[in-house]
Amino acid sequence: MQIIHISDLKNYIGQEVTLRGWLFNKRSGGKVRFVILRDGTGYLQCVYFKGNVTEDTFDAADRTGQESSIEVTGKVKEEPRAAGGYELDAKGLTIIQNANNYPITPKDHGIEFLLDNRHLWLRSKKQVAILKIRHRIVKAIRDFFDDRGFTLMDTPILTPNAVEGTSTLFETKYFDLGSAYLTQSGQLYAEAGAMALGKVYTFGPTFRAEKSKTRRHLTEFWMVEPEAAFFDLNDNMDLAESFLEYIVQTVLKEMKNELGILERDTSKLENVKKPLPRISYDEAIEILKKNNVKLEWGKDISGADETIISNQFDRPVIVHRYPAEIKAFYMKRDPENPKIALAMDVLAPEGYGEIIGGSQREDDLDQLLERIKEHNLPQEAFEWYLDLRRYGTVPHAGFGLGLERTVSWICGLDHLREAIPFPRMIYRNTP
Amino acid sequence: MQIIHISDLKNYIGQEVTLRGWLFNKRSGGKVRFVILRDGTGYLQCVYFKGNVTEDTFDAADRTGQESSIEVTGKVKEEPRAAGGYELDAKGLTIIQNANNYPITPKDHGIEFLLDNRHLWLRSKKQVAILKIRHRIVKAIRDFFDDRGFTLMDTPILTPNAVEGTSTLFETKYFDLGSAYLTQSGQLYAEAGAMALGKVYTFGPTFRAEKSKTRRHLTEFWMVEPEAAFFDLNDNMDLAESFLEYIVQTVLKEMKNELGILERDTSKLENVKKPLPRISYDEAIEILKKNNVKLEWGKDISGADETIISNQFDRPVIVHRYPAEIKAFYMKRDPENPKIALAMDVLAPEGYGEIIGGSQREDDLDQLLERIKEHNLPQEAFEWYLDLRRYGTVPHAGFGLGLERTVSWICGLDHLREAIPFPRMIYRNTP
Repeated sequence: MQIIHISDLKNYIGQEVTLRGWLFNKRSGGKVRFVILRDGTGYLQCVYFKGNVTEDTFDAADRTGQESSIEVTGKVKEEPRAAGGYELDAKGLTIIQNANNYPITPKDHGIEFLLDNRHLWLRSKKQVAILKIRHRIVKAIRDFFDDRGFTLMDTPILTPNAVEGTSTLFETKYFDLGSAYLTQSGQLYAEAGAMALGKVYTFGPTFRAEKSKTRRHLTEFWMVEPEAAFFDLNDNMDLAESFLEYIVQTVLKEMKNELGILERDTSKLENVKKPLPRISYDEAIEILKKNNVKLEWGKDISGADETIISNQFDRPVIVHRYPAEIKAFYMKRDPENPKIALAMDVLAPEGYGEIIGGSQREDDLDQLLERIKEHNLPQEAFEWYLDLRRYGTVPHAGFGLGLERTVSWICGLDHLREAIPFPRMIYRNTP
Repeated sequence: MQIIHISDLKNYIGQEVTLRGWLFNKRSGGKVRFVILRDGTGYLQCVYFKGNVTEDTFDAADRTGQESSIEVTGKVKEEPRAAGGYELDAKGLTIIQNANNYPITPKDHGIEFLLDNRHLWLRSKKQVAILKIRHRIVKAIRDFFDDRGFTLMDTPILTPNAVEGTSTLFETKYFDLGSAYLTQSGQLYAEAGAMALGKVYTFGPTFRAEKSKTRRHLTEFWMVEPEAAFFDLNDNMDLAESFLEYIVQTVLKEMKNELGILERDTSKLENVKKPLPRISYDEAIEILKKNNVKLEWGKDISGADETIISNQFDRPVIVHRYPAEIKAFYMKRDPENPKIALAMDVLAPEGYGEIIGGSQREDDLDQLLERIKEHNLPQEAFEWYLDLRRYGTVPHAGFGLGLERTVSWICGLDHLREAIPFPRMIYRNTP
C-alpha cells in the first residue's frame, strides 16, 4: 500500500493509503475512536468504527499515548467539516513506539517549563505554524533579493576588533591571535561586497551580549542586510517598502492556514503595501507633542514613543533624518544640515517597534576620518574600511532587518522567544 | 539619459545610455582609448575615439586610475568579439573619484598580501565569479530542499555543552550561566525538528577550533544539514545523490560565464548525475589494496586514500557502512552486524575529498544510552536528545554538506580560503 503524507491526501480520495507520524490527540465515543495523526505536513482525523476493524485495532487507540509514533491505514474521505478537508476511514493502527506520559499535555504549562522542553514544545500546533511561517519569510527575503540582482555575501561571524568596548560582545580566544568577537552586524563587510558586486545582501546570525530581559531581545538572532552601490537614502527607503510589502503579502497569500492556527488578525497585515508613510524625526517629535509626550530634539525615540508614533498609521512607518549624534559613525550627514544623519528606521505597527534600521553611508574619506575621531574609535581597526573610500568610493546605502522581530510581528507573538527554534536569552542557553 | 547596468545592455542596442561603476582596466592606442568598466553585473569595453569626444574626455581616460569610480555615457553597439557581446561607443567619462595606486594591480601578488587586502581582492574578476557561483550554489541548496517539503530550521550557534572536551571548540562566557560554545553541527537540534516537522534542514555557519593548516580547513564554514523522519540509510543516499546532481547541473547550466572565467574543466562536472556509485567500506579497502595501499579494517580512510578511491570513478562516490568504532555515538548500528555503523560519506572527484558525511541515527533509547556510556559522554547533557527516543521515536537519517568544500570543488579552487568572502583560518581572522 502506498505510503503518503497528509499534504498529499487530495490526490488519493477514495483510495486505501498508509500514513506515518505521531498521535497528536485522540477522543473516544461508545463505538468510535478518533485518532488525530500529525506528520509534519498537516493533521488528519482517523476514524475507527467498532466492528469495522479488529478488536485489537479498536483497542489500540485507547492504549496509545500522546506523541506515540504510529502508522495508520485506511480510505481517504472528503470531509468538509475537517480542518484539512479530509478524514481517514481507518482500518489499521500500528504502534511504532508507544510514548507514555508525554510532558506537554493539552493543558496549560508555564513558560519556563515549555522552554526547558523546547525540543518537544516544537511539536505543538502553534509552534509548527510559527516555524513554517519563519521558513516562508526567510524564503521570501532571499527570493526578493535574488530576483533583484543582489548577490548573497556571507560575512564573517568571528571578527577581530572590539572597537566600542567589549560590554555587548561575546568574546572567544582565537589561537595565537588574541581574542575574536561574535559579529553584531555584517554591514561593514557588506559595504566591501557592494563595491565588488554592486548589490549584495548578507543574511546570518548576529549576537548581542546585552543584559536586556525585554520581550524584544534575544542574544542570538538572524539579520538580513542589503547594501547597494549608487544608492541614496531615497533608494534605500524605496527598497525597504517594496521589501516589506513583498514579505507580508507573500505570507498572507501562502500561509493562510498557519496564520489561522495562530488566530492572527490579518486585516492589520493587509495594509502593508507601498507607499509606506515617511516622516522625518522632526515630524515624529510633532506627533509625540500632539500626544502629550515631550521629546527633546537630539534624544532617541524610546520603545514606548515608537508605539505612539506607529499607532498613527495603518501600516509600517519610515522615520528618517535623525540627529547625527545619536546615530552610528558610518552614517552620512545630510549635506543640507550637518546635524542630521541620513538614517532611516522602519517601525512596525501594533507596538512591534523597530524592524528595520539603515542609512546612506559616509562615502567621503575625510568626513569618515573625522567621524572616527569624534567617536573615539581606533583608526587602525578601520583601515580596510577606509580603503573603500580611498579606491573608487561611491554613494551607497543599506539597511538591516531583524528576522525574529519580523516573524514575531507577522505571527502576532508576545515575545521573540517563540520566533526562533532554540532561543538564546540572557538567562537561557539550553537545550 | 537612462542609467542602466551592464547586464541590461541587450535591451539598449543602438541607444545612448549611462552606466556607473569602476574602471577595471584600460588600454590606449594613438587615437583611441579603451576603458573597461565593471559594475558588478559584468564588464564593458568603452571605446573613446579622438575627435569624436572632447579633448578633456579623451584625456580623462589617461588620468583615471584603476578602480576609480566613474560614470560613462555612449551608444550601445553589438560586438561579437567582446566578452559580453557588446561594446560602448563612448562619448562621456565622468570621474566620481579618482583612485591612485590601487594596491592590487594586474601583476601577480603573494597570497598573504591578497588576504590582507581581501576587502579589495573581492573586486577581481576571478573572485567575483567565485562569489556569484557560491551565491548560486546556496540558492540551489535552498531551492532543492524547499521544493521537496523540507522546512528550514535555524539551529543555535551558542550551545551549552562541551561534551567531548573543549579542544576543538570556540568558547565564550555566557552571562551567569558559565560558558557557551560555538556550534560544530546543528544535527542534534535538527533531529528534534524532524520529529516536529517531518523533514527539516539547517543551514548556517559552524565552527572548528582545529589546529589544521591544510587547504581543506577553515575555522568558520557554512554547512547545510537535512534531517528526515522515516528515512533509512538508503533514503539518505538517494537524497544525497539527487541533491548533488541538482546543485552541479544547475551551476553548469546557469553559471557558464563564471565557470569560463575560472577556466574550470566542466567535462568533469557533467558526469555528476544519478546514480552515483555506492561502495561499502569493505569494498573501499579492496580498492586500496588493488592500488597497493594496505588499510587495516577498523581504521579511518585518510585524505590521501580518499583520493585513490575517488580516482576510480568519474563522479562522486558514496562510501557506506563504516566500522562503528570510528564513527559518532549517534549513528545507528547495522542490525546485521553490530560492528558496522549505518554511516555514509560522499567523496568528491579530483581529490576534493569528503563533501558529505551522514548516517541513519540510533532511534532506540537503550542502544543510544549504551553508546553514550561507551563514548564516556555525560548522559545528563543528552537528556533532551534522549527524549526524542522516549516520545514517539522513529527511524530517521540525515547528512551534512560543507558549503566551502562544495564551492571549492565546483569552481576548481586550490584552497578553501577563496570559497568564502572573508576566510577565517588558524593564523588569520582579519580583515
